[in-house]
Amino acid sequence: MTKLSLVGIGSGNPDHLTLQAIKTLESADVILLPRKGDEKTELADLRRMIASELLSSTPKIVEFNYPVRDADTPKYLDGVNTWHDALAAIWQDLIATHVPENGTVALMVWGDPSLYDSTLRIADRLIARGIDLDITVIPGITSLQMLTAAHAIPLNTLGGAVQITTGRKLRDEGWPADTPTVAVMLDGECSFQSLEGDDLHIWWGSYVGMDQQLLIEGPLSEVSAQIVKARADARASNGWIMDIYLLRKSA
Amino acid sequence: MTKLSLVGIGSGNPDHLTLQAIKTLESADVILLPRKGDEKTELADLRRMIASELLSSTPKIVEFNYPVRDADTPKYLDGVNTWHDALAAIWQDLIATHVPENGTVALMVWGDPSLYDSTLRIADRLIARGIDLDITVIPGITSLQMLTAAHAIPLNTLGGAVQITTGRKLRDEGWPADTPTVAVMLDGECSFQSLEGDDLHIWWGSYVGMDQQLLIEGPLSEVSAQIVKARADARASNGWIMDIYLLRKSA
Ligand SMILES: C[S@@+](CC[C@H](N)C(=O)[O-])C[C@H]1O[C@@H](n2cnc3c(N)ncnc32)[C@H](O)[C@@H]1O
Ligand SMILES: C[S@@+](CC[C@H](N)C(=O)[O-])C[C@H]1O[C@@H](n2cnc3c(N)ncnc32)[C@H](O)[C@@H]1O
Repeated sequence: MTKLSLVGIGSGNPDHLTLQAIKTLESADVILLPRKGDEKTELADLRRMIASELLSSTPKIVEFNYPVRDADTPKYLDGVNTWHDALAAIWQDLIATHVPENGTVALMVWGDPSLYDSTLRIADRLIARGIDLDITVIPGITSLQMLTAAHAIPLNTLGGAVQITTGRKLRDEGWPADTPTVAVMLDGECSFQSLEGDDLHIWWGSYVGMDQQLLIEGPLSEVSAQIVKARADARASNGWIMDIYLLRKSA
Repeated sequence: MTKLSLVGIGSGNPDHLTLQAIKTLESADVILLPRKGDEKTELADLRRMIASELLSSTPKIVEFNYPVRDADTPKYLDGVNTWHDALAAIWQDLIATHVPENGTVALMVWGDPSLYDSTLRIADRLIARGIDLDITVIPGITSLQMLTAAHAIPLNTLGGAVQITTGRKLRDEGWPADTPTVAVMLDGECSFQSLEGDDLHIWWGSYVGMDQQLLIEGPLSEVSAQIVKARADARASNGWIMDIYLLRKSA
């Protein structure tokens, strides 16, 4: 049986790593390091830096290229599924080649492996392919936690519910029912613009936890245009952006 | 100006601490350590152990007693507000007595300070009382992250929303609209029993991340009674319990 450790590394700062994450990475036989074929080399660099500088004993590092996601596949989910299949095949190959029998292979996962991340789904595909895998998940600080920490705000109202959702869903379905607070991730289009903002407050952040961190907060109707501009400017100057925000109905 | 650092310490295991949390605690002048007047001394012991064994330089530790929460106050929110006021007064006093001018005082917060925790609200009360406070929040691993990690499951379905809510709301309002996944915290009454369970799957955990960790998962209608019994037994033998669960509609 091969042990697979999925290790959350937090959202852009090596100091986000937990002691558990460090110990798990140090005790692995092999760390698989994705070399993403996009502009986000800074993110790959962070992983490389963690492996080379933060660990007191360094396992064997195996870098591999990410398959390109086919944006042309007609149905969204089919595209994702094909891509997960391709990744599962790559992992299977890497494990067979580099991991000793009964050995441990670790992967560093951005933020927390449970939150809008495909690593667990890909691992399940390996099991479905008949690989004898024992999966361990080590939680990491999410970008949502970094957002609320940077703004020094609670996630929830007193005793209130919170909905975590995507930009796509916010655009397509509007404000979710039964919650005063909505956290939005995976939003390439500033989807808060689709809301009536009169009674909403927004706390927005990009590159949260990283050196480039940008924060804007205020009544949505007052700061919406400012966020759209700040996001476009930051994206232009950095070449990439990741952003996240919390919206709350005024009491 | 006094610096106040609210440091998330994770959900019951010192290895949950991030490097940032450790550095922040080490660099504080004073750490305030609540001595809760209830059975949960294990939780106070964890904080004491972190302070005395995990930090390489230990600031001054000031222990203080928690005011008793008045469960008899008629309206729930009034009770909470009075209690927060009482805590704010205690902090104000401790800061004036023990923290040097322009010094830093740190508090260890269970899990993450943003999630169903009153520390930030109490800090805001200090500011409202005219204290010149600079608040820093250091995120910590939440019990919800420990739950999904222990079960090795994603929090969300592919591209789907997630609602985080309380046992009280689940009982009073039923399944929240617009979400296939619900995470429930602060539930003293196994409120999942109020749901029609035929198409629901539950992943339950108590003492997640701790030595006593218990996990049960399965179709809600099949494991509901088993969880109720396991919870009562564990509570009886440990003298206290904390539990959390995730519910998902079957696809
Ligand atoms: C594929 S999801 C991965 C989330 C990750 N697993 C986590 O726990 O935060 C990527 C989304 O996370 C958010 N995100 C991740 N890192 C971020 C950062 N440093 N600043 C702002 N948003 C971030 C953005 O909303 C982005 O679209
Ligand atoms: C006052 S809230 C604090 C939550 C904390 N700030 C966090 O980030 O997890 C307490 C609730 O958190 C959950 N909880 C906290 N620690 C837990 C643990 N180790 N195991 C199970 N549930 C836990 C329970 O639902 C409990 O009722």
